[in-house]
Amino acid sequence: MRIAVASTIVLLSAGTTLAQTREAGPWWPNPAWGAGDQAGASNWITPDKVLEAVGLVKAGKIYEIGQVYEKGMPLFGRRTYALLSPGSPTYAFPTANRIVANDEFVCGEIGQVGTQFDGPGHIGMKVKMADGSTQDVYYNGFTGAEMYSAYGLQKLGIENVKPMLTRGILIDLAGYKNLPNLPARYEVTLADVRGALARQGLSESDLRPGDALLFRYGWSRFWTEPAKYNTDPPGIGLEVARWVVARKASMVGSDQSGTEVGPNPDPSLAFPVHQELIMKNGILNIENLTLEELARDAAWEFLFVFTPVRFKGATGSPGRPLAIR
Amino acid sequence: MRIAVASTIVLLSAGTTLAQTREAGPWWPNPAWGAGDQAGASNWITPDKVLEAVGLVKAGKIYEIGQVYEKGMPLFGRRTYALLSPGSPTYAFPTANRIVANDEFVCGEIGQVGTQFDGPGHIGMKVKMADGSTQDVYYNGFTGAEMYSAYGLQKLGIENVKPMLTRGILIDLAGYKNLPNLPARYEVTLADVRGALARQGLSESDLRPGDALLFRYGWSRFWTEPAKYNTDPPGIGLEVARWVVARKASMVGSDQSGTEVGPNPDPSLAFPVHQELIMKNGILNIENLTLEELARDAAWEFLFVFTPVRFKGATGSPGRPLAIR
Amino acid sequence: MRIAVASTIVLLSAGTTLAQTREAGPWWPNPAWGAGDQAGASNWITPDKVLEAVGLVKAGKIYEIGQVYEKGMPLFGRRTYALLSPGSPTYAFPTANRIVANDEFVCGEIGQVGTQFDGPGHIGMKVKMADGSTQDVYYNGFTGAEMYSAYGLQKLGIENVKPMLTRGILIDLAGYKNLPNLPARYEVTLADVRGALARQGLSESDLRPGDALLFRYGWSRFWTEPAKYNTDPPGIGLEVARWVVARKASMVGSDQSGTEVGPNPDPSLAFPVHQELIMKNGILNIENLTLEELARDAAWEFLFVFTPVRFKGATGSPGRPLAIR
Amino acid sequence: MRIAVASTIVLLSAGTTLAQTREAGPWWPNPAWGAGDQAGASNWITPDKVLEAVGLVKAGKIYEIGQVYEKGMPLFGRRTYALLSPGSPTYAFPTANRIVANDEFVCGEIGQVGTQFDGPGHIGMKVKMADGSTQDVYYNGFTGAEMYSAYGLQKLGIENVKPMLTRGILIDLAGYKNLPNLPARYEVTLADVRGALARQGLSESDLRPGDALLFRYGWSRFWTEPAKYNTDPPGIGLEVARWVVARKASMVGSDQSGTEVGPNPDPSLAFPVHQELIMKNGILNIENLTLEELARDAAWEFLFVFTPVRFKGATGSPGRPLAIR
Repeated sequence: MRIAVASTIVLLSAGTTLAQTREAGPWWPNPAWGAGDQAGASNWITPDKVLEAVGLVKAGKIYEIGQVYEKGMPLFGRRTYALLSPGSPTYAFPTANRIVANDEFVCGEIGQVGTQFDGPGHIGMKVKMADGSTQDVYYNGFTGAEMYSAYGLQKLGIENVKPMLTRGILIDLAGYKNLPNLPARYEVTLADVRGALARQGLSESDLRPGDALLFRYGWSRFWTEPAKYNTDPPGIGLEVARWVVARKASMVGSDQSGTEVGPNPDPSLAFPVHQELIMKNGILNIENLTLEELARDAAWEFLFVFTPVRFKGATGSPGRPLAIR
Repeated sequence: MRIAVASTIVLLSAGTTLAQTREAGPWWPNPAWGAGDQAGASNWITPDKVLEAVGLVKAGKIYEIGQVYEKGMPLFGRRTYALLSPGSPTYAFPTANRIVANDEFVCGEIGQVGTQFDGPGHIGMKVKMADGSTQDVYYNGFTGAEMYSAYGLQKLGIENVKPMLTRGILIDLAGYKNLPNLPARYEVTLADVRGALARQGLSESDLRPGDALLFRYGWSRFWTEPAKYNTDPPGIGLEVARWVVARKASMVGSDQSGTEVGPNPDPSLAFPVHQELIMKNGILNIENLTLEELARDAAWEFLFVFTPVRFKGATGSPGRPLAIR
Repeated sequence: MRIAVASTIVLLSAGTTLAQTREAGPWWPNPAWGAGDQAGASNWITPDKVLEAVGLVKAGKIYEIGQVYEKGMPLFGRRTYALLSPGSPTYAFPTANRIVANDEFVCGEIGQVGTQFDGPGHIGMKVKMADGSTQDVYYNGFTGAEMYSAYGLQKLGIENVKPMLTRGILIDLAGYKNLPNLPARYEVTLADVRGALARQGLSESDLRPGDALLFRYGWSRFWTEPAKYNTDPPGIGLEVARWVVARKASMVGSDQSGTEVGPNPDPSLAFPVHQELIMKNGILNIENLTLEELARDAAWEFLFVFTPVRFKGATGSPGRPLAIR
Repeated sequence: MRIAVASTIVLLSAGTTLAQTREAGPWWPNPAWGAGDQAGASNWITPDKVLEAVGLVKAGKIYEIGQVYEKGMPLFGRRTYALLSPGSPTYAFPTANRIVANDEFVCGEIGQVGTQFDGPGHIGMKVKMADGSTQDVYYNGFTGAEMYSAYGLQKLGIENVKPMLTRGILIDLAGYKNLPNLPARYEVTLADVRGALARQGLSESDLRPGDALLFRYGWSRFWTEPAKYNTDPPGIGLEVARWVVARKASMVGSDQSGTEVGPNPDPSLAFPVHQELIMKNGILNIENLTLEELARDAAWEFLFVFTPVRFKGATGSPGRPLAIR
């Protein structure tokens, strides 16, 4: 399986004569949601799915599974995060009620810092098209030419994604391995995933379309050590990614910065899981979670809530993911 | 009642000799949540309240009740919102899988632009203290001296507020008045609120502690006309605010920029409802909603979901409020 | 002349078979400064030119010819400018000397807001290359492929431009026309320029290589009315631009937002003077000046000082241009 | 002398009964420039001073003595600097001339990052006033109450400072000590300064009012090692600062982040030289220079040029300082 995937990728990148156009290509139009769809696998979240997920709430207990945003948290590459308080206070009115008020000012790659949710416009591929041109192609065949602007994406912006209220499943790999965290660079295998599910009393057939699959690697324990956190995290590879696709998940998530193993064991590939999930299948991805409390409580199944902020044209979203039981 | 409130405010601002200190003053420590509490009325959202709210979901239908964030939307005062796409694409890797990836860069008063949720550190008052000093005092008696820093609030930051998953009640005032929108500067009366509830088949006794009370004025129809939208919106005044306090609401919200009538009919007061709710009682406030679809569906009661993003030290939060039935 | 220019442009854009490559094309390599040069016409500012310019200072009088930067000033397109004061004060140290200190926080298109100096990486053209590809080509043949990154230009960044200490010449067109300002959309003719010089007791032969030529249209009187300021300013067109090139000016400048007439009388051209000067000839351009005081004093010749801030990879620079006599 | 200074500071901070008011206090009104002045020692730069300085240019040679601004450069405290290129290109017009154009987007503490010039509003002191209140007091007695706003300083903003075109003097302390750089934490003594001047063939009497005095410690060699650069730099202390005041310098500068020794040998004082120079005397300060080339050329005296960008309400300015001979 894995070889086939890599072959497809190489085939595409080698620019052999394929008939792909904006209208049709190897991963577009999307077979499930059709040409023009921009919501990706968030489409799985139908009223029935919401009802199923809400039905999991038995105790009313809310778990915070995202991180707090603050300067000094791990950032990828050259990204920035700064929060300033203007004025202190920002306003003071000379009225009888002597009101004072505060703002905050933030700058940074707001959808791609801290706990971050990758939208459908985040990841694409340079593809040789039938007309000889090379184009950046994204989910459902949208091209850079259609999407790019200086002031946000014209297509596949995060505002197209539905709110993520769905059934969440924790897949506790560190627990399965009986380790505080998986080792650096470890690629989680499908056997690991199946073993972890079995340990939790679940099997593959318990997973249902639209579920949010959250992988616990134990990596969040290094959150306060950015250099370590950012280096060579364990994670899933293409084998598990393809299994995720087959499960028809709406999204994945994990307690490291990219969900997938970094770097990929195949040195010719950069972030191929992102392409497999987001680009080819519109399966979304939330990163930099903390899943420790869920694991301690053996909370394997829950109502998952994440509401991507509709910053028009953004590639992703910050937010506050919750697991509720 | 109204007079008494105004008197209190004037009394405080006149600096008469009161015994107020950091430990005790007219609105602190908070009688419900105790000294030191920073979560305010989000504390109403207990497991039981979550269960009650989740139990309202019968159809799995999700209503989007927030606005999309984009340059050109109405902004208060001198606030800023800009979103940039660096690079287009931001990254391109020369690997076999030829991946490209995008970020977005945002700057602005992120918790106080667009659909915005006012946290407990947003609003305070200059108060003459027993030691003769004048201090900025906020919810539960926290002072500017404790809170202010250049890089975010040290106390009462939005990260202290619990996720808002609670029972939501729409109070459709425009519908009650049979108008597309209430007139500019109109102060909603308690009689209006009671009339609107009655029209919806509800009475005061149907409201329960921890509910989110959302006022529909019809003002969101001017969202695309920032100058009009920002000028003199209708809204509740101190009379209704005190009734909200008595209802033990966790939060309020509305389809204009401040929920309260602007300007206040009493020209000596600036944003007194903000003080009454947020500062004195920790009752939170979400602004710039759009409640049209809820009203059309007569969706008066629902699961309300808003998850304030935990930007450490922020005064508020952007987000994506939902009503679910 | 004009026709020829337009023809060249159309020819290029039509993509006829030209031999242009990265190494050679219609405007590259630059005949004066050679392949690889990134400093453009700032190269004219040799030690001798500095001595010539400094020699013009007889009275030691400094004229401020730039605008102050502040929120609310005219901005082009969707640009942003915001300045915040964090903290107030930002820092306070509990030492015996009880020091307090302030910062400011700025965000915006820093080299392209307010008084702005266009660097060599600001303006280019889509060109059909000999290999069939279409590339963005800039001054001296540098291509987008070489220059673009998400975090600043890799080539032709403003840091490559030499400090502008040179002889400045004011060309007072509004004065020549005896108007407070030239009319909107007026294209300054070469005859106008010659007339204005003659009125000032200068002729074309008094201009020397490396001079900074500043055009006064009188348009800065609308600086405080952004909508008017931004609409259809008078300015030079291609006729005068070509004359500027022949004069071997190091730079131009003016008291409107683009120096050139807007829009161009030929509706098929957008900002062609920018291409003629910056892209083809590396002649730099400072915009949004105020030249009123110079005109009042009949200060036609002076030491011009502008020191582009070396923000690495920036397309332009803010700053404080001076005329000194 | 030193003791006296420290005493004054302690006296002030102890809050003993002094008659200081907004109108008069220990360092205000400024005896040289009078009440209300906001330009500080830039007032020394009169037409005569400009003529004197310009007269130093004999060869037309320009030395760059500032650093390039880029992400990763040393930053003080929690400051931020980021530059983004939106779009790549930002604009592309579908006109016959197929123009493309670029912007850059910057965010950060723009006047207090990289090569930075401290304006008169940067540094103050908490002072006990005659009325019992404690106020932040700045140059010429301006108080925080007058100055602070969320959107820039209302008084003493950088826009009040005159362009710095003056006589510059390099005081090469590393050269005098025959070291590549002075040791960490070394406080330069007055004897050192006099020795350095003597080595350069200069004496105290060669210094004149309005000169810019630039101290070379050799510290810029650590510019590319931010952790080292930011830790315990050598620099002048109060002894030399008082001598600078007596020299009536318009400004100082150096090749480290604060010009003064860090930390001060007296642990009860934080940045006292900043107070002595900027706050008490309006003597400005440019930091993070690179003076190596000047030293190599024994360029001790020159035309110094620095034009603070007039960001309204800013505490300082970035820029491109030059030495010209």
